[in-house]
Amino acid sequence: MSTLKVTAFPWVPPFAQGLVRDLRVRWACEEAGLPYEQVLLQGDDQKSASYRAKQPFGQVPVLEDGDFSLFESAAIVFYIAEKSGKLMPAGLQDRARTVSGMFAALNSVEPHITQLNVIDLFNPDKEWAKLRRPEQEQVVRGRLASLSTWFGDRQYWVGDSFTIADLLLVTVLRNLRHTKILADYPNLQAYRDRGESRPAFQRALAAQMANFG
Amino acid sequence: MSTLKVTAFPWVPPFAQGLVRDLRVRWACEEAGLPYEQVLLQGDDQKSASYRAKQPFGQVPVLEDGDFSLFESAAIVFYIAEKSGKLMPAGLQDRARTVSGMFAALNSVEPHITQLNVIDLFNPDKEWAKLRRPEQEQVVRGRLASLSTWFGDRQYWVGDSFTIADLLLVTVLRNLRHTKILADYPNLQAYRDRGESRPAFQRALAAQMANFG
Repeated sequence: MSTLKVTAFPWVPPFAQGLVRDLRVRWACEEAGLPYEQVLLQGDDQKSASYRAKQPFGQVPVLEDGDFSLFESAAIVFYIAEKSGKLMPAGLQDRARTVSGMFAALNSVEPHITQLNVIDLFNPDKEWAKLRRPEQEQVVRGRLASLSTWFGDRQYWVGDSFTIADLLLVTVLRNLRHTKILADYPNLQAYRDRGESRPAFQRALAAQMANFG
Repeated sequence: MSTLKVTAFPWVPPFAQGLVRDLRVRWACEEAGLPYEQVLLQGDDQKSASYRAKQPFGQVPVLEDGDFSLFESAAIVFYIAEKSGKLMPAGLQDRARTVSGMFAALNSVEPHITQLNVIDLFNPDKEWAKLRRPEQEQVVRGRLASLSTWFGDRQYWVGDSFTIADLLLVTVLRNLRHTKILADYPNLQAYRDRGESRPAFQRALAAQMANFG
C-alpha cells in the first residue's frame, strides 16, 4: 500500500496558521490510522500547469495515493473514510446523513463565515467592508442560531460516533476563532472543543503548525 | 417502495424561479427514474419547529422517504444516486472524483456566485454593494477561468457519463443567468447547455415552474 501524500504550504500568515485545509486531511488520516506524508509547495508551484491539472484553483490540499490524485478537502476525507472503512457509518440512510452534515458544514455554514473573514482578515479597512460587516455578522449568527437549535444536545452529527461530518463542521467552526461569536452558541462551542480535544486532531494540528515554526 | 416526497415553495420572486434547489432533487429523481411527489410549504411552515427539525435553516428541499428525512440538496442527490445505483460511477476512485466535483461545485464555485447574487439581486442599491461589486465579479471570473482551463474539452466531470457532480455544477452555473459572465467561458457555457438540454432536466424544470404559473 502506497503512503498517502498531501500538499501543504511551507508558510501562511498567522491568521491562517492552523486553519489551512490540509488540516482536514491530516486529521482524517490520523483518525483512520492511515500514514501520510506532506508535500510542501514551493515557489510558483501553485500557478504551474502541472499543479493546476491536479487542483484547478491552485489551492491545497491535493491528495495523491499512488497514481490517483484528488482535490477538494471534503472529497479527500470522504475517500479516506471509504478507503479505511472508518469515520462513516454503514447503511444507506446513515451514510446520507453523514453527507448531509458534510454539505451543511461546507455549503450552509462555511461560506457565510468565509465572507465574514473576507471582511475581517482581508479587507478590514475597505469602506464596503465597514458598511457590510454588521449585516454579515448577523448572517453568520442566523446560521449558527439555527444550527444550534437543531443540534440541541447531540454529541455528534450522526448517532453516537465521530464521522467526517463532524470533522468538517468542527474545522468550519474553528474559522471564527478571530471573533467571540461562537461563545454565544454554547452547544456548538462545546462541540468544537470536543473535536479539538481529540488526540488525532492534536497530532494533525501540530503537524501543520510545525511548518510555520 | 414509498414514493419520495420533496418540499418546494408555492411561489418565489421571478429572479429565483427555476433556480430553487428542489430542482436538483427533481432532476436527480427524473434521471434515476424514481417517482416523487412535491410537498408545497404553506404559511409559516418554514419557521415551524416541526419543519426546522427536518431542515435547520428553514429552507427547501427536504426529502422524505417513508420515515427517513434528509436535508441539503447535495446530500439528497447523493442518497438518490446510492438508492438507485445510478448517477454515480462504481469504484472507490471514481466515486471520490464524483464527490470532488460535488464539493467543487458547492464550495469552490457556488459561494462566490451566491455572493455576487447577494449584491445584484438582494442589495443592488446599497452603497457597500456598489463598492464591492467589481471585485466580486473578478472573484467569480477567477474561479470560472480556473475551472474552464481544468475542464478543457471534457464532456462530464468524471469519464464519459453524467453524474451527480454534473447535476450540481450545472445548477450552480445556472445561477449566473442574470449576467453575461458565463458566455466568456465557452466550454463551461456549453457544459451548462448540455445539462439543460437533458429531457430529465426539462421535466424537472417544468415541474418547479408549474408552481409559479
